[in-house]
Amino acid sequence: MMALVFEKSKASKKIKWLKTSTSQSWLDQAIAHPLEILIDHANCERKAAGAAIQMMFRYIGEPGLAEVLSPLAREELEHFERVLEILKSRGRYLEPLEAPPYGSLLAKSIRKEEPLRMLDSFLVAGLIEARSHERMALLSLHSPDQELRALYAELLHSEARHFCLYWTLAEERFDKSATLTRLNELAEVESKILSEIHHEPRMHS
Amino acid sequence: MMALVFEKSKASKKIKWLKTSTSQSWLDQAIAHPLEILIDHANCERKAAGAAIQMMFRYIGEPGLAEVLSPLAREELEHFERVLEILKSRGRYLEPLEAPPYGSLLAKSIRKEEPLRMLDSFLVAGLIEARSHERMALLSLHSPDQELRALYAELLHSEARHFCLYWTLAEERFDKSATLTRLNELAEVESKILSEIHHEPRMHS
Repeated sequence: MMALVFEKSKASKKIKWLKTSTSQSWLDQAIAHPLEILIDHANCERKAAGAAIQMMFRYIGEPGLAEVLSPLAREELEHFERVLEILKSRGRYLEPLEAPPYGSLLAKSIRKEEPLRMLDSFLVAGLIEARSHERMALLSLHSPDQELRALYAELLHSEARHFCLYWTLAEERFDKSATLTRLNELAEVESKILSEIHHEPRMHS
Repeated sequence: MMALVFEKSKASKKIKWLKTSTSQSWLDQAIAHPLEILIDHANCERKAAGAAIQMMFRYIGEPGLAEVLSPLAREELEHFERVLEILKSRGRYLEPLEAPPYGSLLAKSIRKEEPLRMLDSFLVAGLIEARSHERMALLSLHSPDQELRALYAELLHSEARHFCLYWTLAEERFDKSATLTRLNELAEVESKILSEIHHEPRMHS
């Protein structure tokens, strides 16, 4: 398993594969709209579970895959339930928020032909986990709301672990150097998508 | 929550809403092909988890729904992992088996307009759980394989509980008498679909 290297700074812990750090404007936007971020966060956890289950379905006979993705999907659902609980304690519920372009643009970068599609699917899923980790770390430090700081501190370690799981799935099946090259390319795309902040507050705006 | 009434017979425990009992020919077929049934069973658990997550997505703002469906999906995934473990211990793995017509024919009975679609979705999901419960009960009694008897005995109670969960979701939101009438109609369809055994051994052949 890849050793995770964190760049420690006052502002954030960043998994080293992310090409750019989250901007202050995203943090300001997120802190100004904590409930909208929570609702979006719940939606993201549910989507992450659904995506893992879809991947299990698509590569049903791939040895060693379902054993990793099924527990990962369960953990995403546990987080979903945790966030939903806090939302409800604050008098809110899930809502169908308009998604920022982040997920769909990343999905477009996934190559169509197998086995490249599998490799890219792992790396894109891993990058989303890495970005979630970075942003939850920011919120765990800078949210003015103590309960939310604790929530994000509790959840962010799983995001880093999930990045590692996806990285390991890729590393076990593909040439190491080609995998690293592709991760670099996709990480460039990921950072470019986030270079303009989305007008609505989202976990990946 | 509805009181579950079981009809106790030598052959099976049957949730009373099922219109007909599983035939001896299904039991013979299943016992003759235990590994194919296990592989199909794993696929069914994964599909059940996916279906619950899809329902959470479709009815995202429906209060009280995600709180039930998310833990249910997690439990389906736990069962998936349990079955996969036994499969692997016997030198097999997941395979993309051709599905019997059961699921798709039941899905066709779901009415298109809301809120009827929601009601039917709960009832169809519940009936599938009820049938799984009945068949696992048969296998827990009649499989010649001790490990499989124990597996099915372990899992079948959750299937009955899941039927109750879906029933309760329906009962809380819809007129009781209309719900019962519709459950009866769908249970007729469900039994009719199974009246001819599928040529390949499946959990719902």
